[in-house]
Amino acid sequence: MIKHPILISLGLCALLLSTAAMAGELPSEKVLPLSLANEAALAAVAACEANGHKVSVAVADRSGLIRVHLRGDGAGPHTLDSSSHKAYTSASMRRSTTALVEMLAKNPGSEGIKYMNDKILALGGGLPITVGEEVIGGIGVGGAPGGHLDEACSQAGIDKIKDRLK
Amino acid sequence: MIKHPILISLGLCALLLSTAAMAGELPSEKVLPLSLANEAALAAVAACEANGHKVSVAVADRSGLIRVHLRGDGAGPHTLDSSSHKAYTSASMRRSTTALVEMLAKNPGSEGIKYMNDKILALGGGLPITVGEEVIGGIGVGGAPGGHLDEACSQAGIDKIKDRLK
Amino acid sequence: MIKHPILISLGLCALLLSTAAMAGELPSEKVLPLSLANEAALAAVAACEANGHKVSVAVADRSGLIRVHLRGDGAGPHTLDSSSHKAYTSASMRRSTTALVEMLAKNPGSEGIKYMNDKILALGGGLPITVGEEVIGGIGVGGAPGGHLDEACSQAGIDKIKDRLK
Amino acid sequence: MIKHPILISLGLCALLLSTAAMAGELPSEKVLPLSLANEAALAAVAACEANGHKVSVAVADRSGLIRVHLRGDGAGPHTLDSSSHKAYTSASMRRSTTALVEMLAKNPGSEGIKYMNDKILALGGGLPITVGEEVIGGIGVGGAPGGHLDEACSQAGIDKIKDRLK
Amino acid sequence: MIKHPILISLGLCALLLSTAAMAGELPSEKVLPLSLANEAALAAVAACEANGHKVSVAVADRSGLIRVHLRGDGAGPHTLDSSSHKAYTSASMRRSTTALVEMLAKNPGSEGIKYMNDKILALGGGLPITVGEEVIGGIGVGGAPGGHLDEACSQAGIDKIKDRLK
Amino acid sequence: MIKHPILISLGLCALLLSTAAMAGELPSEKVLPLSLANEAALAAVAACEANGHKVSVAVADRSGLIRVHLRGDGAGPHTLDSSSHKAYTSASMRRSTTALVEMLAKNPGSEGIKYMNDKILALGGGLPITVGEEVIGGIGVGGAPGGHLDEACSQAGIDKIKDRLK
Amino acid sequence: MIKHPILISLGLCALLLSTAAMAGELPSEKVLPLSLANEAALAAVAACEANGHKVSVAVADRSGLIRVHLRGDGAGPHTLDSSSHKAYTSASMRRSTTALVEMLAKNPGSEGIKYMNDKILALGGGLPITVGEEVIGGIGVGGAPGGHLDEACSQAGIDKIKDRLK
Amino acid sequence: MIKHPILISLGLCALLLSTAAMAGELPSEKVLPLSLANEAALAAVAACEANGHKVSVAVADRSGLIRVHLRGDGAGPHTLDSSSHKAYTSASMRRSTTALVEMLAKNPGSEGIKYMNDKILALGGGLPITVGEEVIGGIGVGGAPGGHLDEACSQAGIDKIKDRLK
Repeated sequence: MIKHPILISLGLCALLLSTAAMAGELPSEKVLPLSLANEAALAAVAACEANGHKVSVAVADRSGLIRVHLRGDGAGPHTLDSSSHKAYTSASMRRSTTALVEMLAKNPGSEGIKYMNDKILALGGGLPITVGEEVIGGIGVGGAPGGHLDEACSQAGIDKIKDRLK
Repeated sequence: MIKHPILISLGLCALLLSTAAMAGELPSEKVLPLSLANEAALAAVAACEANGHKVSVAVADRSGLIRVHLRGDGAGPHTLDSSSHKAYTSASMRRSTTALVEMLAKNPGSEGIKYMNDKILALGGGLPITVGEEVIGGIGVGGAPGGHLDEACSQAGIDKIKDRLK
Repeated sequence: MIKHPILISLGLCALLLSTAAMAGELPSEKVLPLSLANEAALAAVAACEANGHKVSVAVADRSGLIRVHLRGDGAGPHTLDSSSHKAYTSASMRRSTTALVEMLAKNPGSEGIKYMNDKILALGGGLPITVGEEVIGGIGVGGAPGGHLDEACSQAGIDKIKDRLK
Repeated sequence: MIKHPILISLGLCALLLSTAAMAGELPSEKVLPLSLANEAALAAVAACEANGHKVSVAVADRSGLIRVHLRGDGAGPHTLDSSSHKAYTSASMRRSTTALVEMLAKNPGSEGIKYMNDKILALGGGLPITVGEEVIGGIGVGGAPGGHLDEACSQAGIDKIKDRLK
Repeated sequence: MIKHPILISLGLCALLLSTAAMAGELPSEKVLPLSLANEAALAAVAACEANGHKVSVAVADRSGLIRVHLRGDGAGPHTLDSSSHKAYTSASMRRSTTALVEMLAKNPGSEGIKYMNDKILALGGGLPITVGEEVIGGIGVGGAPGGHLDEACSQAGIDKIKDRLK
Repeated sequence: MIKHPILISLGLCALLLSTAAMAGELPSEKVLPLSLANEAALAAVAACEANGHKVSVAVADRSGLIRVHLRGDGAGPHTLDSSSHKAYTSASMRRSTTALVEMLAKNPGSEGIKYMNDKILALGGGLPITVGEEVIGGIGVGGAPGGHLDEACSQAGIDKIKDRLK
Repeated sequence: MIKHPILISLGLCALLLSTAAMAGELPSEKVLPLSLANEAALAAVAACEANGHKVSVAVADRSGLIRVHLRGDGAGPHTLDSSSHKAYTSASMRRSTTALVEMLAKNPGSEGIKYMNDKILALGGGLPITVGEEVIGGIGVGGAPGGHLDEACSQAGIDKIKDRLK
Repeated sequence: MIKHPILISLGLCALLLSTAAMAGELPSEKVLPLSLANEAALAAVAACEANGHKVSVAVADRSGLIRVHLRGDGAGPHTLDSSSHKAYTSASMRRSTTALVEMLAKNPGSEGIKYMNDKILALGGGLPITVGEEVIGGIGVGGAPGGHLDEACSQAGIDKIKDRLK
């Protein structure tokens, strides 16, 4: 394998890319602070408890990593996984998990989405957290008897902080 | 990001929560002792063996953690997983795994429940263990040729101890 | 293999155990409510932030399962694991993780404890949460530059709720 | 919780069980030697190669553990997993994986079997290895374009050693 | 178990096999260099970005191991998994993942293929990389709103290097 | 690559091996019944409880698979892992885990043994279960404050059944 | 457990936090674009190849997630893991992995850091990527015969883009 | 973020790389056929059995993937992992595992190598398989009472085929 011409090309390539990107500062992204994430999560738990549902709630950042994870009183251990996987899915796929369920129902050929990794969860209850058009994270609730009930609690969590998502 | 006002608020918040929860003792939960768990598990194995079924049996606490796990003579290695996952599922979701199978059949949109984590198992043979209305654990049997047969052995396990679940 | 005599013995055995345990109610265990767990976790984050340390905090129940998990602003992703593993370790082993580190230093033959599972973590920063003599959970902090600094924040978390741990 | 009566009962229980099982020697199980397992696996690879199929072959013992695993020339990496999972499944469930596929097609309520653990594989190509009525292991082939083609190679493997399975 | 005759036979067997394979050099396989793999991956990202799709791209060798993995600006974390799993699947199964989706739709009995391991992904967007008839690797794209859109970017990646795949 | 001579040799090889192994029946191995395994496990728990130690106990077969797993009242979740890993290690390595700890202390170059897989555990408390010279399984205890204390309980478990291990 | 006072307090708490954080926009963080990440990774590979070292290179974002992962020609499969784990470690712990090795050598009590999760790697070759004081990611190289040699290549990668890290 | 100049540069870069690499055919690598791999593995098992050692043997290709895996009669389950991890390590790191153990003993700062992934194993018994200077795979033996004894069997496996490794 002839390596030298490639290395020279890589050098030129690097030079060109350097020039292209040299113009300005690096881009930046908005971040959800812990204080807001915790407030949203507490509001989601409270909304579910008000209806007698024992749930867990997770708030993830745009990388899908946990910012806040709460297991409500009496919530089963599986709700830790369902809530965090819904938050991950909404943050990473930039849509509600209910929308994902509906999309899958219409597109049988897309079923593989369910198996992309072990954190993707096509089950109602997860919502993206947005600032304008930009998705900055996700919130997920698990444990209520129905995805729409979980989602209502996630919505309550977002509602609590929505005027500060700017 | 302005941090000080938030920290002050967190302090006030903590103060309020303290006052609210200060009134009494912590809540408590009933626990299944090992002696009863083992007795139930042995009875479940015996019930299945009496019908020629080679099975494993698991009893989990309300956190889904194993209290007793038995692999019967001649039971295949996969029965360790099916039994423990059924026990986990019934303990965490507070219903029989047969009821879960039936619920999923009626609600295609809830299919994601099967994928919440790798311990949830929608397959007959798991039953919650209850004291009154309260679920304190689960029992699961795997290895009989049919979920209803596995469940009958789980039921035999619960029957053996039911008068002491109080 | 002769099975019948064994089954008869198992029956007698069950009978004896039944009689022995039939006397009273099931035992019960105190449980930490989410409200207190969240309050402790917020106090631990705040204590570390006050010293400029970006940390995560976890509160686990006595089964080692997460009740509250918070990742502070700017805390690296590994702090999610270090905090939750310290909380698990203190809850399950009923001691501070610093005490575990010290015990291991004195007993080279016990080194295997570090490898029992992938959640045990011998690194300062985890404390058991107790009611009297009884361990009801654990709290763990990760991300400060030193286990003693992490532990101080965990202690601040416990201090915030200690008068209600009864 | 009153412990002493239970301990006494456990003692009596142990005594009864001791008497019951004391009569004779422990039961024993037939074991497939490596020499036969390797011979069967080579024959299975050769049978598939004769038809132009690039495959892997696995032979598992009754615990589902590998005795022989061969990846044929040009076989893709996924065939290591498909072959070993088919061997595990046939050994543990005591039937061909084709029979499992057919059973699942007829019993939608049993779908959970596919998810019992990550080694169960409902895909043609696995066969139990038997001595009389007793299953002593399994063989699995993966990589041919169709489960029936994989199974034919597994059968060729068994045929090579069948007169010595006694 | 009589071992000596077997060992003698193994010796003879080895002798025969030695003679058979002694004739010439070991076979060899073509390998995709990093320079081409990176070029293809960058072209695939650029093709998707040109259509406003935020994606990840993976190029795998014939063992399914990563040669190049790129996560485009703004692509969600799950796209790392979908892209690498599509590349693995196409490299290992020697076909496009779209062809796999279509094959599964026609053969319900082959559904188990989806569960062979956790890297197989039946979702459009993966293509084999070939030199003549020989598959030397795979490329996978994840993140566009539809498998056909992901596949078009994978194709753009291959097109960029196809005249050098010889 | 020339394939035909190899296939012919494989055929001859198979023929020779067939002749060699055709002489008699397959070998067999003694198996520990569930009844004895459960009896030993209960005795081990009782021995530890008599000294105030809250432990888990596991009995594994010679493949390292669980036959009996018991978590005693009040034993932490990590004891499930320590007990089962000690049982696996003693069954698979055919020695006590204390002997393994001692061997490692004398042979620094063998340290890698600790990392062979995630079930090997070099920590006192595991013992092999033997019939004469033959190891048919292992028993492991975890949770007492010291490996020698765990081992004493494992020994109590074996002592309870030793006269029937023949 | 008395719930209502707690809920009221939670409401007040949320109100206070709202007021505190309502003042301005969410904070934001700088992000490394793919173009720069790929350029740095190619430069790192080239620097190692120039010295005859076959390596893999990974660039991770501040969440530790892969942006670019390259396996150089002839680099062993383990270099994928060593490079990505070094990048993760430097990004998450905000220091070079060499500095981590040195810190661990001086603080035996901190040894647990090595076991926090399976991505932390205390082995020279990883460097944080910074904009001023802020760590925005990490780069890791694996495969050269010595951590200092790996680190030199990582440094070459950073040097290529350093004037644009602003 | 200004994208267009970067895309133009990427285009130029691709053009340059294309020209550089266009000169000839792709490089190729020698491959170990299954027939030789199996022959070596059988010879390794036989060499160990001749000394009374019950072992497993693995042969891996240069990607570390299994070509042949054999568990000898009576070998414990852990030997499957030790043998395959030694084969992986020797193939990927291009040296004997004994040489790795010795290198680690001399370089405490390189200890992290042991933790790069869960397949690397620093324990004698693994050897690279070479054609001239080129490493085309690895062989590993596990189960003999000492790494040097395992290595002797691996060497016996290589010796059986060494005259055909060209």
